[in-house]
Amino acid sequence: MGRAKRMERVVALTKLLVDHPQQLFSFSYFCKKFEVAKSTLSEDVLAVKSGLELFGLGRVETLAGAAGGVRFIPGHSAKDDEDFLRDLALKLSSADRILPGGMLYTTDLLCNPEVAVRLGEVFMSRFKHLEPDCVMTVETRGIPLALFVARAFNVPLVIARHDNYITEGSTVNINYVSSSTKVIRTMAMPKRALHPGNKVLIVDDVMKGGGTARGMVDLVEEVGAVVVGKAFLVETAVPEHKMVDDYTAFFRLKDVDEEARKILIEVIENK
Amino acid sequence: MGRAKRMERVVALTKLLVDHPQQLFSFSYFCKKFEVAKSTLSEDVLAVKSGLELFGLGRVETLAGAAGGVRFIPGHSAKDDEDFLRDLALKLSSADRILPGGMLYTTDLLCNPEVAVRLGEVFMSRFKHLEPDCVMTVETRGIPLALFVARAFNVPLVIARHDNYITEGSTVNINYVSSSTKVIRTMAMPKRALHPGNKVLIVDDVMKGGGTARGMVDLVEEVGAVVVGKAFLVETAVPEHKMVDDYTAFFRLKDVDEEARKILIEVIENK
Repeated sequence: MGRAKRMERVVALTKLLVDHPQQLFSFSYFCKKFEVAKSTLSEDVLAVKSGLELFGLGRVETLAGAAGGVRFIPGHSAKDDEDFLRDLALKLSSADRILPGGMLYTTDLLCNPEVAVRLGEVFMSRFKHLEPDCVMTVETRGIPLALFVARAFNVPLVIARHDNYITEGSTVNINYVSSSTKVIRTMAMPKRALHPGNKVLIVDDVMKGGGTARGMVDLVEEVGAVVVGKAFLVETAVPEHKMVDDYTAFFRLKDVDEEARKILIEVIENK
Repeated sequence: MGRAKRMERVVALTKLLVDHPQQLFSFSYFCKKFEVAKSTLSEDVLAVKSGLELFGLGRVETLAGAAGGVRFIPGHSAKDDEDFLRDLALKLSSADRILPGGMLYTTDLLCNPEVAVRLGEVFMSRFKHLEPDCVMTVETRGIPLALFVARAFNVPLVIARHDNYITEGSTVNINYVSSSTKVIRTMAMPKRALHPGNKVLIVDDVMKGGGTARGMVDLVEEVGAVVVGKAFLVETAVPEHKMVDDYTAFFRLKDVDEEARKILIEVIENK
């Protein structure tokens, strides 16, 4: 192809950067791709940075030096994130979500890519200082959320499973007590999914008593990896005592009144 | 904020379009957002279109008329897709993936966002003429792939489950026979996840005998929805007879020689 015009280059550069969040590209990679000098590329990068930041669509970071380069960090303004979470809390409070036993139907929202992608970016922004090198969840309902958190961090997702017939080779197993049912269950993870020293961010959609979260922590520690954070979309107000501490939740489900068909959810302030 | 410069607008426009694949934005939405006249916006849209297409990074479609607007369709050149699939087949053929029973460890690839996002776009490109309004899979291993297919189509994902204790309200259940184990199992789906007339694309990572796929088809038909396509990343050569027909697979697992530690995978030609 002939050499691209500046505007076309900047469009392609924008797309390539946002398609690979967190990935550090060397300047020479793009210089070669676009057949331009480094000074020209630097101006292009500045244009992308300025366009994205002006409209609150994420940040472009440039690192100087031999190991330097450019990368895109997804994110939105604090106010946009607040509005998004408040709007989501409102949607979650809709009476037709009430399920028997005081739980909420959330699958439609968590399995909606537009919502889940955005949530993944909100989680990433909140936990980016932890620099996890993988995200972990347990099957099934939390997977879409956790996967988009992993996507925003551009790190692998590790899925722990409940069953024993997993076809993923040798596994690490632990037993845990579900805090709601008091039943002892098994949680398993492929042995090769996590390595000693890995920094793991645990993500799940809901935390009630924290038994499942406790199980995931045990599984991570069993292989010598480290839990750097525990993040939940919703925590329930009851039970008050949780089997894990030092966790973050975005919403608190304060009350589900099945008779009056009323749900009370609050957005937890950013600590 | 002050009015943005053209370059900044084009960067923001690129980001907004690619963040919402398939979504039709009206021209007036962007005219208002960027405080520009329609003629100016039209030029900006042309710049995005030209930049993305020049580098094989997807298409921008504009629809004229009152219900018209602009939307982004993810995708790559046919050659890029071929290279990606061939490279993935090579990775899948690595001897250390062999699991007892002649299956392959694929979790690291399917749970790697960079790979899964790209696969989602490859699946979408192949099936876009079917215009599904949701993607369906069954827990657990196929979920990441199916979710990124749903993301590329920008439609919801429906997850069928094996267990009975699902906390998603009333369910539709069917029984099916696993073609590998011959065991009768139950598959369940939240009643509100699918509606009569929905056009469903079934996605899973592996198809052996097709028993699980058959189960998903039954589940879809049970609620009066329609299966418009069945797509698998890998089909096994054995058994030759599958319990579903009219499906598409991208790879064929021809042989796993556990003793010689050799895997034979072929990329199936685009039909």
